[in-house]
Amino acid sequence: MTAAAGWPRIDGLVYGGDYNPEQWPRETWDEDMALMREAGVTLVSVGIFSWAMLETSEGEFDFGWMDDLLDLLHANGIAADLGTPSVSPPAWFFHRYPQARVVDKDGTVMGFGSRGMASHASPEYREAIVRVATALAERYADHPAVVMWHVHNEYGVPVAEDFSPRAVASWQAWLQRRYGALDALNAAWGTAFWGQRYAEWEHVVAPAATPSIANPAMKLDWARFTDDQLRECFRLERDAIRAHASQPVTTNFMAHQSWNTDLWKWAQEVDVVADDHYLWSPDPDAHVGLALSADLTRSVAGGKPWMLMEHSTSAVNWQGRNTAKRPGEMRRNALTHLGRGADAIMFFQWRASRSGAEKFHSAMLPHAGPRSRVFREVVELGGHLKDLAEVQGSETVADVAMLYDWESLWAQDLEWRPSDDVQFRERMRAFYERLWRDNVTVDFAHPEHDLSRYRMVVAPASYLLTEAAAANLTRYVESGGTLVVNFFSGIVDEHDAVHAGGFLAPLRDALGVTVEEFLPLREGETATVAWGDDGPVVGSDVWQEDVQVHGAEVLATNASGPGAGMPAVTRHAHGSGAGWYVATRLGVDALGTVFSGAYRDAGIVLDGAPETLEVVTRRGPDADFVVAANHGDEEARLPVAGVDLLTGDGSDDGFTVPGGGVAVVRVARASEGTGA
Amino acid sequence: MTAAAGWPRIDGLVYGGDYNPEQWPRETWDEDMALMREAGVTLVSVGIFSWAMLETSEGEFDFGWMDDLLDLLHANGIAADLGTPSVSPPAWFFHRYPQARVVDKDGTVMGFGSRGMASHASPEYREAIVRVATALAERYADHPAVVMWHVHNEYGVPVAEDFSPRAVASWQAWLQRRYGALDALNAAWGTAFWGQRYAEWEHVVAPAATPSIANPAMKLDWARFTDDQLRECFRLERDAIRAHASQPVTTNFMAHQSWNTDLWKWAQEVDVVADDHYLWSPDPDAHVGLALSADLTRSVAGGKPWMLMEHSTSAVNWQGRNTAKRPGEMRRNALTHLGRGADAIMFFQWRASRSGAEKFHSAMLPHAGPRSRVFREVVELGGHLKDLAEVQGSETVADVAMLYDWESLWAQDLEWRPSDDVQFRERMRAFYERLWRDNVTVDFAHPEHDLSRYRMVVAPASYLLTEAAAANLTRYVESGGTLVVNFFSGIVDEHDAVHAGGFLAPLRDALGVTVEEFLPLREGETATVAWGDDGPVVGSDVWQEDVQVHGAEVLATNASGPGAGMPAVTRHAHGSGAGWYVATRLGVDALGTVFSGAYRDAGIVLDGAPETLEVVTRRGPDADFVVAANHGDEEARLPVAGVDLLTGDGSDDGFTVPGGGVAVVRVARASEGTGA
Amino acid sequence: MTAAAGWPRIDGLVYGGDYNPEQWPRETWDEDMALMREAGVTLVSVGIFSWAMLETSEGEFDFGWMDDLLDLLHANGIAADLGTPSVSPPAWFFHRYPQARVVDKDGTVMGFGSRGMASHASPEYREAIVRVATALAERYADHPAVVMWHVHNEYGVPVAEDFSPRAVASWQAWLQRRYGALDALNAAWGTAFWGQRYAEWEHVVAPAATPSIANPAMKLDWARFTDDQLRECFRLERDAIRAHASQPVTTNFMAHQSWNTDLWKWAQEVDVVADDHYLWSPDPDAHVGLALSADLTRSVAGGKPWMLMEHSTSAVNWQGRNTAKRPGEMRRNALTHLGRGADAIMFFQWRASRSGAEKFHSAMLPHAGPRSRVFREVVELGGHLKDLAEVQGSETVADVAMLYDWESLWAQDLEWRPSDDVQFRERMRAFYERLWRDNVTVDFAHPEHDLSRYRMVVAPASYLLTEAAAANLTRYVESGGTLVVNFFSGIVDEHDAVHAGGFLAPLRDALGVTVEEFLPLREGETATVAWGDDGPVVGSDVWQEDVQVHGAEVLATNASGPGAGMPAVTRHAHGSGAGWYVATRLGVDALGTVFSGAYRDAGIVLDGAPETLEVVTRRGPDADFVVAANHGDEEARLPVAGVDLLTGDGSDDGFTVPGGGVAVVRVARASEGTGA
Repeated sequence: MTAAAGWPRIDGLVYGGDYNPEQWPRETWDEDMALMREAGVTLVSVGIFSWAMLETSEGEFDFGWMDDLLDLLHANGIAADLGTPSVSPPAWFFHRYPQARVVDKDGTVMGFGSRGMASHASPEYREAIVRVATALAERYADHPAVVMWHVHNEYGVPVAEDFSPRAVASWQAWLQRRYGALDALNAAWGTAFWGQRYAEWEHVVAPAATPSIANPAMKLDWARFTDDQLRECFRLERDAIRAHASQPVTTNFMAHQSWNTDLWKWAQEVDVVADDHYLWSPDPDAHVGLALSADLTRSVAGGKPWMLMEHSTSAVNWQGRNTAKRPGEMRRNALTHLGRGADAIMFFQWRASRSGAEKFHSAMLPHAGPRSRVFREVVELGGHLKDLAEVQGSETVADVAMLYDWESLWAQDLEWRPSDDVQFRERMRAFYERLWRDNVTVDFAHPEHDLSRYRMVVAPASYLLTEAAAANLTRYVESGGTLVVNFFSGIVDEHDAVHAGGFLAPLRDALGVTVEEFLPLREGETATVAWGDDGPVVGSDVWQEDVQVHGAEVLATNASGPGAGMPAVTRHAHGSGAGWYVATRLGVDALGTVFSGAYRDAGIVLDGAPETLEVVTRRGPDADFVVAANHGDEEARLPVAGVDLLTGDGSDDGFTVPGGGVAVVRVARASEGTGA
Repeated sequence: MTAAAGWPRIDGLVYGGDYNPEQWPRETWDEDMALMREAGVTLVSVGIFSWAMLETSEGEFDFGWMDDLLDLLHANGIAADLGTPSVSPPAWFFHRYPQARVVDKDGTVMGFGSRGMASHASPEYREAIVRVATALAERYADHPAVVMWHVHNEYGVPVAEDFSPRAVASWQAWLQRRYGALDALNAAWGTAFWGQRYAEWEHVVAPAATPSIANPAMKLDWARFTDDQLRECFRLERDAIRAHASQPVTTNFMAHQSWNTDLWKWAQEVDVVADDHYLWSPDPDAHVGLALSADLTRSVAGGKPWMLMEHSTSAVNWQGRNTAKRPGEMRRNALTHLGRGADAIMFFQWRASRSGAEKFHSAMLPHAGPRSRVFREVVELGGHLKDLAEVQGSETVADVAMLYDWESLWAQDLEWRPSDDVQFRERMRAFYERLWRDNVTVDFAHPEHDLSRYRMVVAPASYLLTEAAAANLTRYVESGGTLVVNFFSGIVDEHDAVHAGGFLAPLRDALGVTVEEFLPLREGETATVAWGDDGPVVGSDVWQEDVQVHGAEVLATNASGPGAGMPAVTRHAHGSGAGWYVATRLGVDALGTVFSGAYRDAGIVLDGAPETLEVVTRRGPDADFVVAANHGDEEARLPVAGVDLLTGDGSDDGFTVPGGGVAVVRVARASEGTGA
Repeated sequence: MTAAAGWPRIDGLVYGGDYNPEQWPRETWDEDMALMREAGVTLVSVGIFSWAMLETSEGEFDFGWMDDLLDLLHANGIAADLGTPSVSPPAWFFHRYPQARVVDKDGTVMGFGSRGMASHASPEYREAIVRVATALAERYADHPAVVMWHVHNEYGVPVAEDFSPRAVASWQAWLQRRYGALDALNAAWGTAFWGQRYAEWEHVVAPAATPSIANPAMKLDWARFTDDQLRECFRLERDAIRAHASQPVTTNFMAHQSWNTDLWKWAQEVDVVADDHYLWSPDPDAHVGLALSADLTRSVAGGKPWMLMEHSTSAVNWQGRNTAKRPGEMRRNALTHLGRGADAIMFFQWRASRSGAEKFHSAMLPHAGPRSRVFREVVELGGHLKDLAEVQGSETVADVAMLYDWESLWAQDLEWRPSDDVQFRERMRAFYERLWRDNVTVDFAHPEHDLSRYRMVVAPASYLLTEAAAANLTRYVESGGTLVVNFFSGIVDEHDAVHAGGFLAPLRDALGVTVEEFLPLREGETATVAWGDDGPVVGSDVWQEDVQVHGAEVLATNASGPGAGMPAVTRHAHGSGAGWYVATRLGVDALGTVFSGAYRDAGIVLDGAPETLEVVTRRGPDADFVVAANHGDEEARLPVAGVDLLTGDGSDDGFTVPGGGVAVVRVARASEGTGA
């Protein structure tokens, strides 16, 4: 296949990582080239933190070392993803423009000596990043090594919010653009509450330190503003590059691990979607979170292949206990990313740094050098990717959509919600994991997207749900869809105002229920749910509610707790579809009963594979590619016919995937797909 | 009965809540009036957060909407408790007077966007609140709806301390007034320790951020100063109102849930005592805390009827898990407040807010509207209060006083005490709960009050005890009283200086013991206490001490722990009375043995009701009113003869109170009272 | 014996404490003198917090009360350790020089009202402390009571770091002196990482608040700078005193309980080493920590007798639960300090303060007065010290050295290490406790010290290990020494840069292993270690690693966990010696198997005493003094012949030490010593 528009000019699947040779003497560069070739590296990201080396004082550029580096890469057949260094302005910048430093909500000024993050509202910063991006683009637009531009790094981390005076001024201007009239702002924020009414634009402050909690609608807008500020800076750099260069421009997202960036909007701005992903080591099933992030990344990319811009060969360095990957784990991680749509597999970073904050982060080439387990597996993976070249450009198949809205995340996780135990990400992960265990591949969707192509739509955490979104979901059910909604959804509108008619009112038609009152459980308190008189009794916790039934069928009831006797799970036939509602917190196991019924409504048939065998399919023009990763210790059966591209073995009746192993099977078209 | 002096002109028991119609369109107001009448509402508090709506820019007032509102209320027969909005200055105020913002101990300035709390030391703030209170009083002094003035809101929360430069200047002036000469301050604070001696008044700083902990005597004075600042502002507003209006003036206390306000002093300033109370949801017996707060409120009110200005119909919104009240719980809460002296039962708030920080706080009219459990119970309670009209003005009867001194709270809960596990409120609650379970009604008293009318005086946490207070307690015992003192009492004087003679020395005569050394237990460590050779052995923890006996009888001994073999409970016959001392931490159950002996000394006979049946009596001129709330699930027997005013049923031999139910029985005078 | 050079002119062992009579009326001083004489007090520390009393305004001194005090002491035969009050500048100083206040990393200014700690970088502060020290030295150089000078108090607590503008300027100057050229700094700090390269000295900031973590090499230098600043101030005062006075000058260290002071360097600056030690009450074996601190103090003192400047008679006041010492515990504590080299036993403080932050700290004379358990034991201890006079000047004997390097502590405990569970002090304590239980006395040593006189060298936490230190250790093994190294050692050089060659590479020759990858365990996760096929299986946790064997013998293997099958304990014969390596976290019990083998290599034979009988020997010119403290409840046998100096009893075959008791046995020379 050929690469999609916007994809960098590289043959085959992309392989590589961040490369920071400025940390090493020149003789090390040559060793790097040899080892990169051995590993099959085709692309490296360079220059991301190099501002201080490139612009040595204001307006004075030193491109010599970068010229050498790019020439060297090109001579070795390795392409460059050229970074703009805007994430890390130099010491001289902060010395000259101290007002460009970020200020936190308590008024503490964030100084230099770390990543050097600057205020995105600062005119001096904006001028500087355009100057540097322009200089780089002018110089390297035609360099044969440069196939791609990498703007900034992980927008939104380590800090996104900024309460500096410049930011507050930008905020006031942003609000004027958003609301036009002050009356509209007063209405949207409900400033009649606690006497917050504004009489002049210049009186509007940022939600910095306050005696009690700040207005939640203001904080929700502040999150939107913060995201917009970051995106404005991205556009400034991107457009500066485009003025001179024609290679695709990207930046690296953090999908489910970011907070401040609404990736539905960001994905519209980049030429190709790229994502960073790191396992969360306290989680023994961190690979489920990996799959979620990969699916979310593919979804914001509109289903198109995307780039895994960073992951780790083994341990990271910034968690409490940085567990190392065990043999084979990196391969499983990399290839499940690939199964979920990644056509580029890259790492942070090529060579482990001897110094600095991240010296204990693993790398393709660890401190122990090339004669090490990690480097051997890096070389092996490079070989795999060559064997899998034909997968490039194929698209992952999903029948189910899960609703994901950063605005709802921002709104739900504010202070003073009914229960601290109800968290957006917790429910998102639990519902996702239920589907993951069932090998039901998921796309993520914004609640106002067209959902008609999905057999099922799942809403684990849609606290903020606009009238338009609710109407969209209602139409979806009417048209035959199966909708599964979790509690604490449909509560507020885009201004964090409770919907008229009460909780869940906008989904009353689709679900046949509303909620009269929340009944949160105490910390650590548990309860039970009974499915009819003879059905299973399962555990629940955190939440119950006083559900009012308006036509729905009550499938399960709270058997204990403050809502004892009240509905726990309901199903409502509406139009040609069905709306399911879950009114208590169920774990991944207990959700099984809910979903077995919902799958039936949706016509979804499970593949019957063991829970630990993760199976996902990419559809190419002529064949499907089934990626199966075995996360268990026991071998598992993958009942598909085709050729395992990693081994070259063919089979008519299926493959045995060894414990910890992976198979990527080319299945000729006309095999059983569940696809779109 | 007729209402007491200072009581608002309203017939019968008062019923209602906060009303914030500025959050709603005008047509909603009419619906509110109809529903208020249905519920039997007689009084609403208005205008508490309305500064920005009333004074739209400095000196510019807009009274039109308030005129309309008061007229509408009056037309519907509903009285108004008119608030002054000083708790929430407008945005324009902070924009114009940024120096009036509160500063925390780390120097962080508390900005606008929340409640807008201002520095109470700020001259600009003080001028502004007098201006607004005056304008309101001038305009509404004669409005027929206005029966009462409600100054500010919950003084001391969300913040009380203020380290702004203005506050520090006020502090220096306050100290000069308090001490006259700097030598007196140096002596009182013990500034010879750690070289803190002051040579000039202007060198005296506030206890803001310091390298190690600040001088505790300074911090105790800082707490007094902070309280005084708040009270000065209250007086300014109150006097501005009195200059024009004759209705009673109040503000809403938070009794046991406040920290910064010495309610013994505050109660002297208001015309009628009002209190807010919210259940603490992690506590499964939160109704015991309710009873404590109600008794404390009645006590600071001098035993006179008081107003429950705010409580909730169901959940609040600011706790970690905001549990909802279950059916009947609101009724039990409201009527036990009434039993403990409340002649007004009010809620925050009438109608749930769609927007803002407290949108998930329950209300009389919830988001679900009038067709809801909560509104039905609100209407029912309104009916009850009509049935109970004759209770108005009667006074709750108590034979036991518990010592409560905010100064001791402030002093005890400073840093670097012998054990973090010894906390004022924990012991206060444990001793109170022991008496609550025994249905022994308690008044609270300041340690220097006349205690002669009580059969028993209990001191759970009197760390700070002046010589005068100790002499008062000693006289009380000499005169025949029974005194029960818990450990870590009688330690320091009013300057947090250890009493000459050592720990407990001021009470040596009354108790027949002193304490040579504290023996705190490690975290989680437990021990046991043995009552004589054959008596019970009970658990203990947190604390033991090296008690020196000077005449007391040792009733129980530590059987393990660092103070093994040392006294755990002693009793000292002194004069005509007895002084009991508890030298280890005992739980509510283990305190039973202590109190059964002390009741015997005091001649207190228990009613024998089950622990979950809360019984309290109000004494009227012709009859007693026995309020019995059943907090258990089983029915319980109330053995009094009379008429249940809620049902109209009469009985000669007692009533059965159903699980969760309440009875209010009129008992003709000459029934068995234990009263004063 | 006679006292060492630099020792204060006092006959016999020194006994006393801090004395702050300025907190008491004059008549109390006379009572103090009588009681001090009763207790056998020979030295008191005075004036430590007296700046405000001595210099009442800038340049105005009031020495009258100090004259009186010193005369009174002298008249009573009590010597004075005269403090300089630089730890606590007066209120007037901070009022006049607000820029001399310490600023924390968030920019919060530390104000007056506590200990009054000032910025050690402030020129005004430096000028003032020299002025005061000079004035004191001029006046009291020849006072017969003054035998010693006590500069400042516990350098480094409560705060050491200072981010004030003055401190940042000093930091830049310090860096210029350290590095000469900016290129050297950029190389040392690895500023190529995250784009931190500095182009001008004035751009170098301090590691205050930053968006992510600050450069670790910068933070390591910042710790060195902070320590240097403190030491510069010490030297200023010391030299001011020496210009006028000839008595020895000291300051009180906090050995293992300090953080910011590199005592190897500090000990070079004082005339006599003095230490403060307080038990950590949550630790049931806090006396092991005491022994560690005492050994560390003796070691920085070069093995010479030292002064225990502060400990407590019973509880302290600043821990969460301040447990009291039980009868006999103070004696055990004091005499084990003596056994480990202290020739002075002193307390904070003589008389408990009535006021201030530390009023609940125990004292020689408690609040309960002289008729108290504590004072009786104080008098008894005074008598013991008279009986032990001949011990003075003898030196404690140790055959084992444990490596202790404050630079490694500073570097290891920075952020973003592989596991939060790996902490310098935890491992130091565990290895020390293993040796303590075996009654193997330990010296501490810097890794670059000459180690040739030790039979064994133990490195529990040598994360930072220079090439020179590694070469030193390698030579030590080659020459026949036994070296025991714990994991996470030999990782970085003096700039926190990973050693070339990978983890542990500098010790490859000595240990015969290197480490390819760290394998930290999850929080709470446990594993097991098997010693050969038939050997013991013991528990482990926190850490495993991928050990590469280069000649070492694998003695034990991980039986489970991420490093299952990999080496857990290895032994390498190298030259005439042996290098042991422990590659997982073992508890004190499990370390027994490691050490039993290592003792064998080192020729160390254990004394066979029960684990709770602590035995340590001081060697005098003619006799040894065996100090045995029984920390258990049962009596224990001490099999040495001699005379117990506390009882006067002699024995040819040993002594029975009662539970909780102590014996100090003079053993005539030619008894079995293991010593140097």
